Amino acid sequence: MRTEGRLSNQLRPVKMTLDTNKYAEGSVWIEMGDTRVICTATVDERVPPFLKGQGKGWINAEYAMLPRATHSRNPRESVRGKLTGRTMEIQRLIGRALRSVVDLQALGERTIMIDCDVIQADGGTRTTSITGAFVAMALAVHKLSRNVKFARYPITDYLASVSVGVLQGDVLLDLNYEEDSKAKVDMNVVMTGSGKFVEVQGTGEDAPFSRAELGSLLEHAEGGIAALIEAQKEALGAAGTRIGAQRA
Amino acid sequence: MRTEGRLSNQLRPVKMTLDTNKYAEGSVWIEMGDTRVICTATVDERVPPFLKGQGKGWINAEYAMLPRATHSRNPRESVRGKLTGRTMEIQRLIGRALRSVVDLQALGERTIMIDCDVIQADGGTRTTSITGAFVAMALAVHKLSRNVKFARYPITDYLASVSVGVLQGDVLLDLNYEEDSKAKVDMNVVMTGSGKFVEVQGTGEDAPFSRAELGSLLEHAEGGIAALIEAQKEALGAAGTRIGAQRA
Amino acid sequence: MRTEGRLSNQLRPVKMTLDTNKYAEGSVWIEMGDTRVICTATVDERVPPFLKGQGKGWINAEYAMLPRATHSRNPRESVRGKLTGRTMEIQRLIGRALRSVVDLQALGERTIMIDCDVIQADGGTRTTSITGAFVAMALAVHKLSRNVKFARYPITDYLASVSVGVLQGDVLLDLNYEEDSKAKVDMNVVMTGSGKFVEVQGTGEDAPFSRAELGSLLEHAEGGIAALIEAQKEALGAAGTRIGAQRA
Amino acid sequence: MRTEGRLSNQLRPVKMTLDTNKYAEGSVWIEMGDTRVICTATVDERVPPFLKGQGKGWINAEYAMLPRATHSRNPRESVRGKLTGRTMEIQRLIGRALRSVVDLQALGERTIMIDCDVIQADGGTRTTSITGAFVAMALAVHKLSRNVKFARYPITDYLASVSVGVLQGDVLLDLNYEEDSKAKVDMNVVMTGSGKFVEVQGTGEDAPFSRAELGSLLEHAEGGIAALIEAQKEALGAAGTRIGAQRA
Amino acid sequence: MRTEGRLSNQLRPVKMTLDTNKYAEGSVWIEMGDTRVICTATVDERVPPFLKGQGKGWINAEYAMLPRATHSRNPRESVRGKLTGRTMEIQRLIGRALRSVVDLQALGERTIMIDCDVIQADGGTRTTSITGAFVAMALAVHKLSRNVKFARYPITDYLASVSVGVLQGDVLLDLNYEEDSKAKVDMNVVMTGSGKFVEVQGTGEDAPFSRAELGSLLEHAEGGIAALIEAQKEALGAAGTRIGAQRA
Amino acid sequence: MRTEGRLSNQLRPVKMTLDTNKYAEGSVWIEMGDTRVICTATVDERVPPFLKGQGKGWINAEYAMLPRATHSRNPRESVRGKLTGRTMEIQRLIGRALRSVVDLQALGERTIMIDCDVIQADGGTRTTSITGAFVAMALAVHKLSRNVKFARYPITDYLASVSVGVLQGDVLLDLNYEEDSKAKVDMNVVMTGSGKFVEVQGTGEDAPFSRAELGSLLEHAEGGIAALIEAQKEALGAAGTRIGAQRA
Repeated sequence: MRTEGRLSNQLRPVKMTLDTNKYAEGSVWIEMGDTRVICTATVDERVPPFLKGQGKGWINAEYAMLPRATHSRNPRESVRGKLTGRTMEIQRLIGRALRSVVDLQALGERTIMIDCDVIQADGGTRTTSITGAFVAMALAVHKLSRNVKFARYPITDYLASVSVGVLQGDVLLDLNYEEDSKAKVDMNVVMTGSGKFVEVQGTGEDAPFSRAELGSLLEHAEGGIAALIEAQKEALGAAGTRIGAQRA
Repeated sequence: MRTEGRLSNQLRPVKMTLDTNKYAEGSVWIEMGDTRVICTATVDERVPPFLKGQGKGWINAEYAMLPRATHSRNPRESVRGKLTGRTMEIQRLIGRALRSVVDLQALGERTIMIDCDVIQADGGTRTTSITGAFVAMALAVHKLSRNVKFARYPITDYLASVSVGVLQGDVLLDLNYEEDSKAKVDMNVVMTGSGKFVEVQGTGEDAPFSRAELGSLLEHAEGGIAALIEAQKEALGAAGTRIGAQRA
Repeated sequence: MRTEGRLSNQLRPVKMTLDTNKYAEGSVWIEMGDTRVICTATVDERVPPFLKGQGKGWINAEYAMLPRATHSRNPRESVRGKLTGRTMEIQRLIGRALRSVVDLQALGERTIMIDCDVIQADGGTRTTSITGAFVAMALAVHKLSRNVKFARYPITDYLASVSVGVLQGDVLLDLNYEEDSKAKVDMNVVMTGSGKFVEVQGTGEDAPFSRAELGSLLEHAEGGIAALIEAQKEALGAAGTRIGAQRA
Repeated sequence: MRTEGRLSNQLRPVKMTLDTNKYAEGSVWIEMGDTRVICTATVDERVPPFLKGQGKGWINAEYAMLPRATHSRNPRESVRGKLTGRTMEIQRLIGRALRSVVDLQALGERTIMIDCDVIQADGGTRTTSITGAFVAMALAVHKLSRNVKFARYPITDYLASVSVGVLQGDVLLDLNYEEDSKAKVDMNVVMTGSGKFVEVQGTGEDAPFSRAELGSLLEHAEGGIAALIEAQKEALGAAGTRIGAQRA
Repeated sequence: MRTEGRLSNQLRPVKMTLDTNKYAEGSVWIEMGDTRVICTATVDERVPPFLKGQGKGWINAEYAMLPRATHSRNPRESVRGKLTGRTMEIQRLIGRALRSVVDLQALGERTIMIDCDVIQADGGTRTTSITGAFVAMALAVHKLSRNVKFARYPITDYLASVSVGVLQGDVLLDLNYEEDSKAKVDMNVVMTGSGKFVEVQGTGEDAPFSRAELGSLLEHAEGGIAALIEAQKEALGAAGTRIGAQRA
Repeated sequence: MRTEGRLSNQLRPVKMTLDTNKYAEGSVWIEMGDTRVICTATVDERVPPFLKGQGKGWINAEYAMLPRATHSRNPRESVRGKLTGRTMEIQRLIGRALRSVVDLQALGERTIMIDCDVIQADGGTRTTSITGAFVAMALAVHKLSRNVKFARYPITDYLASVSVGVLQGDVLLDLNYEEDSKAKVDMNVVMTGSGKFVEVQGTGEDAPFSRAELGSLLEHAEGGIAALIEAQKEALGAAGTRIGAQRA
């Protein structure tokens, strides 16, 4: 039995509050247990230099934590003068994951910039950021679609993410901070609404893992992600109906 | 009549939600109209090098805005690699203002680090940060006082801040973003619970101001700050009763 | 009686030597007692990106101290790799103050860049910099006016600055370093030739101040600034006669 | 048939030249086809601050590419003034992977610093770096063991890494640059001598992948890594015989 | 007798391996004793901003050492976030020296970028870099000349460099690290194929030197450089025949 | 005949004003024609980490130019966030040169920090800085000698520096900016009071030079430096009498 009384394959309570920011084109306040992240989407009618004139769009992401999002205070990266490797790794992951479900040609020459700011951290901040970032992006594209006539709807599928791990021999879904800090194997999985893998990042620094354990980890992740995508669909409602429409 | 139907000497609705962060020693979510700031206080049992061994404590503050706290997205200072002059100016102001109501000797050799993070900005983010920072600090000192036997209570008075300005010839209290961007004179005032000035920062870049206007601006500020200090007292309740006790 | 035998409302000896730099469009070596600052004005026939194509000019300022301008040596900001908050605050203040007496439309699309470099510091370096910066700017605009036909003369008024403070209960004008380091209240005031306030920055970190004290501080500042503006007029001579001409 | 005439599950020619650096405690020049990396191991009799006094050691890694290791010249990170996200990600991966086969307690309070410098890049630079880094580390520990009496031999297992990918529907082992740039799915795998996974990092930015494809990718990786570990054993010879000895 | 059994005016064994990099327009692996440097030349069909539109080309150089090129490991400049003064000085020297034998007008509006990366350092890394850089540049220009019809051949003369020093009263040629660290006078000389001086940089921090010693140092340098230029000619073969052709 | 009517071997007017800074242990305002430099010496009773506990002292130097010291304004290095290669090269040169005439053992465990700040630049700023830096250092050591009982006087000889160059076939001493910008060969020489060379840095980027030209350049430099050392002796007076005393 887990500290919070959860089953090994049970998510923490998920809560998504949409349009919490009065300026952003899309925004969501997402909670997974005590992990809380603000995700905003900003539409910029320009693209990075390497894409200019190609008729394609881009999705970019930045990630940060408030200094006291964690047990002890973390120095600000703005004060240190540079991003940590961890931050860079996470924001590259978020951007890559979102782009996997966006038809950049259909989006046209514009950038959607996603900001994920962790207000409180209790494990799974990168996976929660991805799940929330997708919702903020979906809201921004839905809003865009009122003014821009897309030949194809730019979002091709739903997308969510969850962490799984091995703790004292058990495979657990959606680890909180305490569990995560004791886990021997730690894996982050990103999947689409149609059940395909976009990212699988497993690390066994403390204990290498077998092919069988890997299978069990992925199974737990599949279940968790399916539930998260249901929650996204419910939260987005009408704003999500055209997602993946071009696949039909 | 102001855009929001306010009188010239009327504050926007103020809301303070205490202890919103599960890790920080003190925290508050403060709203002044659509301006929203998270203030946390972290107690660190060390002092900066220049104070070591003097038996005195320190109060420090940092300030930042989420990228999409504003109409258009602002680049992160962590990505730029350095703080802007505006940020430095504001966090120096917050720290200085808080220290004016703290008996650093009584606090003992420890630092209280205040973080003010603007979630949404609609004018008055620095003054709202100071008003909220005081509350977060008060909560942290109150919590400290359960374990540390203070000879004198370290907080000597209440403290709050508000902006005032001159817009089309009228002196206005607590300007929102739209008003602020049109104001000819802009002033930030910090005062104590006993009605004394801690900071007066007035600037008339677009139109120098007279001694009479200065008087009227300060009068408006005094009224607004008195109301904010009432709100702080109500919010803090029992946690605020020993503030200024040493003065008796 | 003050250490130098000055009265409470007496300035230190002021000395301005004009055109000390053979390359700059305007330059002055200014001394207030032992505080010495070199101010130069550089005319650049471009404007910052945010002003391009608007037919308006800009005034910018930078401020620095030589490492051994002070009692103990200060590390160079170029070696630290970034400006301190204090420097940023001061150079923002200088630029803002100067712009308050410049008709940017009349100046036309060009920038005047002011450099204030403190050769020796004995209190009041930021106020002395403003007083000197005005003179350097006035010289540069006067020189410009020989080649550029201004519809209106771009400088609309004189401008100078002085510090005031409260020391052992007395209000003092133009504090030197020793006085400044003991003062409880510290205020910098910038005023125009027509006696209006451009900046009022008072701070009572060590002892909050009352409305009455504020009044007395401003009175001292007014007297000091009037004397400084007389000194500027005398130094500029013919180069200053068109200042404020458009007001008539 | 692949451009170089290789089978889908065939490695490029591997070449390891040991002790190529006259100063380093361990060094190897490793080639995988046209990819060439110099790996050196430096023993430092100190540990990072967070480990001081715990009787444990540490393994750290840094990674870089010469500017003209690639088709077009890359600007130096030293000139840019900061590391790219890609570099940070790779060096964190190398360090984490190596630590998974080191008994840090057995190593004692010292750090082994691994430097991987890519001389020429033709795909697989991060996996080649890991395979070479293991050899350099093994040489350094072997050398250390002549002077330090280890209670247990600190290296607990062999370790190597390879890339796999999906290109035009085929799963391929050890992609060169040309193949890598066209692959839809890209995966890096790190495994131990006993056939366990240490890192699995798969990304399908261009085309999400199924569970079945994942299985096939891992199978190819297992074969490739087993062959690389054979090559490491042969290269290390006597210097590798005590690796994993404590497991017995 | 020197540690390696060399005479005072004898170079260490020189070895140049050409075209070691499959991407660069010119490359050489150069060894002087145990000092090893990789030099690559990259042709860029652009010039720096200050040369745009003048019909002239440019030669630029960068220099770095691998962290473990030296006895004890040096921190990476990319990790420190800035270049050391030593690196800047060396790369400015390399660029300046190469430009002295290039007719920039004849080269046309393009830049040749030279990278010198020290793989192993045993004294004389800057002089070896210059000697190797010349060869890499010569290869790149020779390759260019197949596609570009030069009015005059852009390389006007051969160029090489060597160090000389005074050790225990003796003047020595081409010092290794051990000799260099004990030398009282240290001098780097760059000369052309026609026997003229391009750079003479002598420093007697530990013992000022006389005019006579200077003469003897230059004599040793002349002999060493003549031998190095012979080695360059042999290595370049046909690729070097047009060098200096315009002088005829 | 030179622009200023000077002979080829004639220095510009030299002026040294001592003790211009009220805080520094030694200071001089030095002028060579229109080149003006403030040199200050700061005594710090600590040494850099690499010298701790060795009973030896250190001399360090920093160099900078005010932004408008030159024809057109140079951006501040503090704003750029890093030193240019030119600045680093110059300050390394100044420190090295001064150390050549200091007995670091005799100085004892303390550092003398020299700051050279160019107020106005008209050629020869680095050589003028060295000549002035020596005077500031001599004043600081003389002042130190009143409180510290030196076994041997730490300054072993006088030291000065001058530039020489080849312009239109003529060898010229002490080039001003206009001459310097047209010179084909440019050389900076540092010599001691006893006529030995400390630094010889000659560069012929635009035209390599012969052994004969080098001889003539050095001859001109010797004459100029002898005159500068006379001027130093006169300026220092009694403060310079013990310089080199230990040599007797």
